[in-house]
Amino acid sequence: MKRAVVLFSGGLDSSTVLAIARQDGFEMYAMTFDYGQRHKEELKAAERGARHHGVAGHLVVEINLCLYGESALTSATEVPKTGVTNGIPVTYVPARNTIFLSYALAWAELLGASCIYIGVNAVDYSGYPDCRPKFIQAFQQVASAATGDGVDIEAPLLHLSKSQIIKRGAALGVNYAITHTCYDPHGGLACGKCDACRLRLKGFADANMVDPVRYV
Amino acid sequence: MKRAVVLFSGGLDSSTVLAIARQDGFEMYAMTFDYGQRHKEELKAAERGARHHGVAGHLVVEINLCLYGESALTSATEVPKTGVTNGIPVTYVPARNTIFLSYALAWAELLGASCIYIGVNAVDYSGYPDCRPKFIQAFQQVASAATGDGVDIEAPLLHLSKSQIIKRGAALGVNYAITHTCYDPHGGLACGKCDACRLRLKGFADANMVDPVRYV
Repeated sequence: MKRAVVLFSGGLDSSTVLAIARQDGFEMYAMTFDYGQRHKEELKAAERGARHHGVAGHLVVEINLCLYGESALTSATEVPKTGVTNGIPVTYVPARNTIFLSYALAWAELLGASCIYIGVNAVDYSGYPDCRPKFIQAFQQVASAATGDGVDIEAPLLHLSKSQIIKRGAALGVNYAITHTCYDPHGGLACGKCDACRLRLKGFADANMVDPVRYV
Repeated sequence: MKRAVVLFSGGLDSSTVLAIARQDGFEMYAMTFDYGQRHKEELKAAERGARHHGVAGHLVVEINLCLYGESALTSATEVPKTGVTNGIPVTYVPARNTIFLSYALAWAELLGASCIYIGVNAVDYSGYPDCRPKFIQAFQQVASAATGDGVDIEAPLLHLSKSQIIKRGAALGVNYAITHTCYDPHGGLACGKCDACRLRLKGFADANMVDPVRYV
């Protein structure tokens, strides 16, 4: 059975991507990153989700860019709650998708996997430069040049709106109740106010569906 | 003063690159990786070298791809000692330069650095796919697409032979006595027999110079 590495956060988008990779006929190897997130809800959701989707392997990789004892990747800056704005948001982690794809490429080589799936999205992309189509195209060139046999980068959500992603996942049987999206959860409940929650809630509304996750 | 991140292992090539970056007028930020090397000689050489070259900052990043408790990046396979062969050698670490450049890109963004220097070499490159010019060109596209302002990738050794690298560095005052190259050192002495030692010794011989490093 052909193998794929799937970048998997436990969130709505990457849970949909896992279901797409399975439908595409791949044995799935989920890769999750612990980069000093403020809370561990995301990692717990990833473990639940990987089990739920029946992956062949799940690897949690700790990435650490410490300057003078504190992480440079995750600042103490307040998460904005006033709505989605233009420009690069403060929740941006420098070169995050580049680092994620690089590790996925290493694991793909070790596993003999022919494909890497990533759930980036250019429509509701929140202004991150490394979610643009030209970034994915550029990394495809790196994946071809850096490896002996070449590895394909699949970004099946790239041109879908959030509501299209939700409808696609629902058709594939994704259980969105166990996915985690919120940047700032309290007691296991989503805040409903951060950028990620706002985009998610709008996606369910546009799809005429009810978000099964519990909010504050 | 404009800033550059310099990937720096403490070896001959990256020590030469530091000297070139300084000549190019950059304030240098050296980045070294600890990926579970068999011995810590390389890290000690990097610390010595970074001090020697007067960098503005030196960051040692631990990278770890552990599968079932052991590192998948550094196998226990014997280092070959029978001479330089064709094909991808067993000392190859999957996607190593891709991971290194990704972290360098993150640090460059944090520092506001406009440039990343890497000492890859396509002439005496030992058969690593991620030392080819097309790999560097591809990563340049990633660096432009992944960031707001764009970051240049400089690979000043790409088309130089080992002897040309040594002559260039010597002209810039690089002290090669404190550089470390050997894959398999014993008691602080280089083995003289691994691929890296053979290429280094041939480079000094071709440059009509004496290698100041001590061998077994």
